[in-house]
Amino acid sequence: MNFTIQSALIPVEQGYESVDVQIVDGQIVAIAPALEATGTVVDGHNKLLLPGFVNAHTHSSEMWQRGSISPLPLELWLAELYDFTPLDPEKVYLSGLGTAVETLLSGGTTIVDHLVLIPGQELETVEAAVRAYQEVGIQAFIGPLIQDQALITGMPTGGIPHDVPPYVRSTDDAISLLKDCIHRFHRPDQGISIMAAPTGSQLCSDQLFQGCAELSELHDLCRHSHLLETKAQKLLAQEKYGCSAVEHLQRLGFLGAKTSLAHCVWLDDTDIAILAETRSTVVHNPLSNLRLGSGIAPVLKYQAAGVNVAFGCDGASSNDSQDLLEVIKIGSILHNVTDFEYRHWITPRQAVEMAALGGATGLGLQHQTGSLEVGKQADLVLYDLTNLSLLPKTDPLGLLVLGRPTQVVDSVWVKGDRIVADGIVKTVNVEHLRRELFERSEWTVNRQSVTLPQFEPLYRRVMLGDREGIGD
Amino acid sequence: MNFTIQSALIPVEQGYESVDVQIVDGQIVAIAPALEATGTVVDGHNKLLLPGFVNAHTHSSEMWQRGSISPLPLELWLAELYDFTPLDPEKVYLSGLGTAVETLLSGGTTIVDHLVLIPGQELETVEAAVRAYQEVGIQAFIGPLIQDQALITGMPTGGIPHDVPPYVRSTDDAISLLKDCIHRFHRPDQGISIMAAPTGSQLCSDQLFQGCAELSELHDLCRHSHLLETKAQKLLAQEKYGCSAVEHLQRLGFLGAKTSLAHCVWLDDTDIAILAETRSTVVHNPLSNLRLGSGIAPVLKYQAAGVNVAFGCDGASSNDSQDLLEVIKIGSILHNVTDFEYRHWITPRQAVEMAALGGATGLGLQHQTGSLEVGKQADLVLYDLTNLSLLPKTDPLGLLVLGRPTQVVDSVWVKGDRIVADGIVKTVNVEHLRRELFERSEWTVNRQSVTLPQFEPLYRRVMLGDREGIGD
Repeated sequence: MNFTIQSALIPVEQGYESVDVQIVDGQIVAIAPALEATGTVVDGHNKLLLPGFVNAHTHSSEMWQRGSISPLPLELWLAELYDFTPLDPEKVYLSGLGTAVETLLSGGTTIVDHLVLIPGQELETVEAAVRAYQEVGIQAFIGPLIQDQALITGMPTGGIPHDVPPYVRSTDDAISLLKDCIHRFHRPDQGISIMAAPTGSQLCSDQLFQGCAELSELHDLCRHSHLLETKAQKLLAQEKYGCSAVEHLQRLGFLGAKTSLAHCVWLDDTDIAILAETRSTVVHNPLSNLRLGSGIAPVLKYQAAGVNVAFGCDGASSNDSQDLLEVIKIGSILHNVTDFEYRHWITPRQAVEMAALGGATGLGLQHQTGSLEVGKQADLVLYDLTNLSLLPKTDPLGLLVLGRPTQVVDSVWVKGDRIVADGIVKTVNVEHLRRELFERSEWTVNRQSVTLPQFEPLYRRVMLGDREGIGD
Repeated sequence: MNFTIQSALIPVEQGYESVDVQIVDGQIVAIAPALEATGTVVDGHNKLLLPGFVNAHTHSSEMWQRGSISPLPLELWLAELYDFTPLDPEKVYLSGLGTAVETLLSGGTTIVDHLVLIPGQELETVEAAVRAYQEVGIQAFIGPLIQDQALITGMPTGGIPHDVPPYVRSTDDAISLLKDCIHRFHRPDQGISIMAAPTGSQLCSDQLFQGCAELSELHDLCRHSHLLETKAQKLLAQEKYGCSAVEHLQRLGFLGAKTSLAHCVWLDDTDIAILAETRSTVVHNPLSNLRLGSGIAPVLKYQAAGVNVAFGCDGASSNDSQDLLEVIKIGSILHNVTDFEYRHWITPRQAVEMAALGGATGLGLQHQTGSLEVGKQADLVLYDLTNLSLLPKTDPLGLLVLGRPTQVVDSVWVKGDRIVADGIVKTVNVEHLRRELFERSEWTVNRQSVTLPQFEPLYRRVMLGDREGIGD
């Protein structure tokens, strides 16, 4: 569909300009004041037009547990999470819809889903997420979450050996599963891309990382992984490799311009230099890092070193939302407390660029999307500046990023297809989704995790120097 | 009006219970399952009932500048703020309405407005805010913001003297103004209380603090002030007093069980012990403290020491919103990165108690409001748990505090008067307010503060060791 957005405000070098934007065959073909209208006319008066953001790291099925997991650090939180992760592809489909809808209504046009797989129904899990994203019409990068080591392996031992059960899936099975996913679902032209996305160095063998790197070369896939989210992971990397996880991943050939790495909280200056040199992208998940007590990622240092940074919501049970505007707000102002030199602080304008172009760059799409430029695909979001939460009128980007915008997204286009209009998602029945989420869930009271008490003594001993619960 | 809320979920010791709540003459008279209905029946099915929260520190007229002030530390941000503060009581009235509406729709029933006064129209300013809050029907504590020293006095000098202009108002004038405000506007029975609220030790003489303390004794007023918001203020207190600001305020008799202190970021253990001993309340403004780079208040230490902590949004140009639920979320999870001992982390249930009972306690109202108890006044908020942003159903308080609730407030009662019903504010025309805010404002592009460049060289020299702009 061809269309022209008339009289929308866009950010320009010195403030804002009111322009018309012409879109033909899904591409931006002209941006200038008072253009002749092509195709359908969309009124952009008192609206702000921005490139779509990328929700650059999430786990969609965590939506089923949002609000329910106790205040715990990652390693213990994971124990509780996996005790209650849904084992039903239909639920995966519904949380895929929910994640996509919340991403769209907070300015996102692309989603990176590091997708937790149901054991024995791995392809059905991916199929369910693909179906959700295609139905919504959001651009999706799905990284089937693969590992070849059991969950407790993700904790440092402090030098004391402990029993480690085998993982349900071998390295070869994990690689072979990724191959199947590529074969069946990797359709970038249809908006669905498979990523090579091992969970993280804390739960994966070198062979798995290398296998993923090879498949990504062969099929031109993006690579994605968790990286040094917690202090425990930093200690573990030293125990496993005798060096930092970043140096190790570099040796394994996993880093690069299409590699995006979630969290990156515990990197030192040498690690940061490696990310810059390999042109890898950091995905900043500020809310999850606070919620799990992981720490504050050194984002100002990343930027000073020239490392590309994008924003992610992370899964909805460590956030516990999928509101990109909230993540962008907190993920920009949070760093003001890490540096007294306020000239380094992230401005609203820079934050928006990180969310859009930074996200696109992490997926190797910086030449196709992520900014308002002629020739780029029309991944666009129009914000209603007359909404009460964006008033009084001051600086539009300041209001959007620093405020608490509520229901401000008027329209969203992905590759020129309008999937939100007048604040309403057109492609899925959100009211029906709401009813399904309500009917398929139960109020949770005093849920007890079986695995948590198994993990807690080891965690407390190594991370808190605690001897509680150790049977010696 | 008498009424009965039927079948609402309320938090109890072990999870939740579905109960009926009877309200007669503005008071809660019964809480139990299956009560006989008294008066009007309100359907609480699939809704969560909580005590109203207190927005325990804000500056309402800052709403006119939200989103517009550059990323700057407090001392420089203030310079820009005051260059553009509105000088029109009608604007003060409208931002009072806006602040009250946003507070209500995020769960608040009480507001503490540390109100910036228009020079020469001080009483008109207070009158405008009083009018707004009475019209909305929210319970309001208005602290006319008084000081007797010029803005630049709020910065440490590093021992080098600099020119300090006189302030527009003398100490006696400030005290006399407070007396007038008490006489004209202090009507606790009508929901409007005046507070004795000097700006802070950085901008006030000892005489002003003592005068405020005396008036508060005489009229049983709450006391309120900023306290050690920034590192600069900590340095300044040492320069001014040779001791910490907390010790100094204790000596002046300003601390106490009805004293609430905004920010409290730079307190040490001795200071914390003084707050505990005097039963003073800390008002935690986490978003403002991040936005201005002030730091992370040591809230877990306050709680360990038994200091009462409440939540505030702070003014809407250092936040830049008045959404209490956002403040409660960030103000609870933020501290997880300050302590590896996760058993100290603030749970959603504790966060809600801080926002309600903690807020009430800071105003000396802990026996009248702040919890769901028979005999307390009916300051109540009913949340719609079928809203998409609170689904799937898991733990209601977890969803409300850790999620990103959007338009979830169904009903609000203040002293038993229903001022929000079905998500709509009944007492003011919000659509009319929205149009007024829109029409009375202009998009701000590259606004230049006159005062900022005057303050910046001193700030940079003292706080950043910078010699830029110093004419020597």
